[in-house]
Amino acid sequence: MSVASRSDPVAVELARRIVSFEVDRISEQAIESSRLAILDTVGVTLAGVNEASVRKLMAAIGVSGESGPASILGTRLRATLLDAAMVNSTASHALDYDDFSQPMGGHQSVPLVCSLLALAEQEARSGLDLIRAYVIGIETEIRVARSVNFHHYDKGWHPTATIGIFGTVAACGYLLSLSQAQMATALAIATSMASGIKANFGTMVKPLHVGQCARNGLLAVLLAREGFDANTTAFEHKQGFFNVFNGTGNFNPDRIFEDWADPLEVLGEQMGLKQFPSCGSAIPAVTMMLQLRKEEAFSLEDVQAIEILLHKRRLVHTDDPDPGTPMAAKFSAQYAVCRALVSQAVRIADFEGDAFHDPEVRAMMARSTTRAHPDMADDSPNQFGAEVRVTLVNGTVLSRKVDNLPGRGIHYPMTPAELWDKYSDCAQVSLPSACVKASFDRLLGLEKLRDIRELTALLRP
Amino acid sequence: MSVASRSDPVAVELARRIVSFEVDRISEQAIESSRLAILDTVGVTLAGVNEASVRKLMAAIGVSGESGPASILGTRLRATLLDAAMVNSTASHALDYDDFSQPMGGHQSVPLVCSLLALAEQEARSGLDLIRAYVIGIETEIRVARSVNFHHYDKGWHPTATIGIFGTVAACGYLLSLSQAQMATALAIATSMASGIKANFGTMVKPLHVGQCARNGLLAVLLAREGFDANTTAFEHKQGFFNVFNGTGNFNPDRIFEDWADPLEVLGEQMGLKQFPSCGSAIPAVTMMLQLRKEEAFSLEDVQAIEILLHKRRLVHTDDPDPGTPMAAKFSAQYAVCRALVSQAVRIADFEGDAFHDPEVRAMMARSTTRAHPDMADDSPNQFGAEVRVTLVNGTVLSRKVDNLPGRGIHYPMTPAELWDKYSDCAQVSLPSACVKASFDRLLGLEKLRDIRELTALLRP
Repeated sequence: MSVASRSDPVAVELARRIVSFEVDRISEQAIESSRLAILDTVGVTLAGVNEASVRKLMAAIGVSGESGPASILGTRLRATLLDAAMVNSTASHALDYDDFSQPMGGHQSVPLVCSLLALAEQEARSGLDLIRAYVIGIETEIRVARSVNFHHYDKGWHPTATIGIFGTVAACGYLLSLSQAQMATALAIATSMASGIKANFGTMVKPLHVGQCARNGLLAVLLAREGFDANTTAFEHKQGFFNVFNGTGNFNPDRIFEDWADPLEVLGEQMGLKQFPSCGSAIPAVTMMLQLRKEEAFSLEDVQAIEILLHKRRLVHTDDPDPGTPMAAKFSAQYAVCRALVSQAVRIADFEGDAFHDPEVRAMMARSTTRAHPDMADDSPNQFGAEVRVTLVNGTVLSRKVDNLPGRGIHYPMTPAELWDKYSDCAQVSLPSACVKASFDRLLGLEKLRDIRELTALLRP
Repeated sequence: MSVASRSDPVAVELARRIVSFEVDRISEQAIESSRLAILDTVGVTLAGVNEASVRKLMAAIGVSGESGPASILGTRLRATLLDAAMVNSTASHALDYDDFSQPMGGHQSVPLVCSLLALAEQEARSGLDLIRAYVIGIETEIRVARSVNFHHYDKGWHPTATIGIFGTVAACGYLLSLSQAQMATALAIATSMASGIKANFGTMVKPLHVGQCARNGLLAVLLAREGFDANTTAFEHKQGFFNVFNGTGNFNPDRIFEDWADPLEVLGEQMGLKQFPSCGSAIPAVTMMLQLRKEEAFSLEDVQAIEILLHKRRLVHTDDPDPGTPMAAKFSAQYAVCRALVSQAVRIADFEGDAFHDPEVRAMMARSTTRAHPDMADDSPNQFGAEVRVTLVNGTVLSRKVDNLPGRGIHYPMTPAELWDKYSDCAQVSLPSACVKASFDRLLGLEKLRDIRELTALLRP
């Protein structure tokens, strides 16, 4: 689709694309990809709900009852639509174990899935409706991301929240069948609600960004449905989203529309599920270390020095030689890579309690250095590259390198066994085992569910 | 107080100043100034609650019951603390008739007053507690504003919301006696919640910014009290508030602390109450036009051309020759000035219904031009200057000019009669006359109230 003739404001054109989205172009492969992403997001939400960030949020906003239109996943609690969207979405990102996308510069599913689920539960909608809304939400947010990244990301915005909010609006607005005018208004309202800065990475505020994004995006939709108004030129306005968040010369709105939905963003190769619960930026290095450890024969006593080389963009927020909390440990490339070296695995439990103080891991961290990989250019499309180099006391240097490993996506799918391993490890945190298995099976057949409440009923202990 | 020795992060030092604030330094004059600001804010809230923006917000978030810890002012409804803060704060700015501050680059009271009132109502606190928390909140937000303005303002942020949130945090956190560590955390959380861009000025989203700010600031306080964590370097961090919102070289954190509370910001000369319900940026020109009209003898038929000259910074968002809604009319300097010319007054009713289509006013608007005043320098401290020039058909040019008129503050106070005129005109929108008079009297003696519920009980019809 060409954009040459575009004359309407960005919000209006974007709304047109969203409300007139041809669901026929959602292929079987796109449904498959979306179903797996939703399954994975539900799993990490069930694991995240007991995190301190979520418990404290529920106490602060007063979520404690068992009535209301929407479930708090993994608990017996129910709440208002907006509170459920906020709490569940915070839970979905609390472990930083959810899927992520390179063009997004963040996590694509968590801004959408829990607000959609709450809405679908209230409205008794089908699994296929949920999947279609998901596809449209992902298309919208990643298209918007393409127009502002990576300046947006590098500057310090948290795109999962500041761009994800437009995906939430598109997905929830589509599910509620907003008119084109209402959709444009909801998108414009959202430009005034986008928030979240990277200074708060490594703290409970990072998942809170996602909770706020989900609540605010859904609120923008509900306001637009009530007839709220907004300035539909709020993206390109001289004091609008592009100029205020990015600044002159640092964005290109045409990128939203060129090749819209062709191919669908849910089929993008540069996105994927996380197999390990550390920050996605550290996973390529973790994977390389696991591979090296598996394939080479040496003992920990043999290790003299460890070098961790990441793409420069990934290093900024993962270079932490001495994380002080379990949350900070998730963002420490040094901790994650040395944990992989020591334990030959990286699990949820490695980011709980005192695990990050483990003396064996700390001993390896003390021998580690990090730096930007000199072969990986700033502007390369491959920004999830990593190399690990282990120097042994006898002088031998072992290394493994990957040019780009942005998660487990359609180019390198997780096996059914790997999916189950991750989902069951996550879901058992808050669900009894019968519900773990039953909900996994129901999520695998999501597009066949007539009423999403057949699923949400299983997501309560 | 010198800042030379400051070594702690901004949030920590700011928290120290807030929690150790010496209430003895709040003079009688400061109490008087604060009481009038709170009175004025309650008045405009009572006028705003019936606006479409507020009614639609209540419908969207589901505020419809008569139970809950906090009142929705001017109604019989009650709600949760966060919902009441959000709805009432949106109402307080819905008419854009609330006080404003030049260093703030926006409205200083609305980010604080309604969240404080809801909290004080829930906690049964005294009028003096409310006033003290107000003084501290104003000190905090205007000090932060001094560190980032006017780059922040010019860029397109809405400081009332993006900076006001720190005032909300300080005021509500002080009322709840947060510890220094909790206060620093709450301020850091708020850096990730600040939002609101000027592209949405002239729509219902502008007051919504304030509702979001009030809710989010109060939420940050409640989260910190629950033990939430955040990065206390979130202001000065390389990807923190200063760098992300303003950019390198465009801020100066020392301005927060130099001369802290000496004099108190509530005694600042460059802030004041609004006597007319149009955008504050247009009021100096309105005042000049009213003066000219009163002092010169001519009829509307004599008018050939009208020139409206504002400080450049005030013109950006008020230059609207053809406002399309009552809300847009509030931001149109052309409409406000021509309304003053035609009606010799500017009232709430002039921004309701079809009043903005008034043919007599439109006829004058068609003869009007606007421009930045060539004598008013961008960097002048006087940014509320204006001149109006009326050219008559006989060639006579009449003009009035004021160098700076930032509202009716301590330098030029509203008389008791003017205060009552504005309050009663506002409050009668939602209260019966007995409550209007009784609540006015109680607000005039606010610092003597033992329990704020003696006031809030009168703010229900």
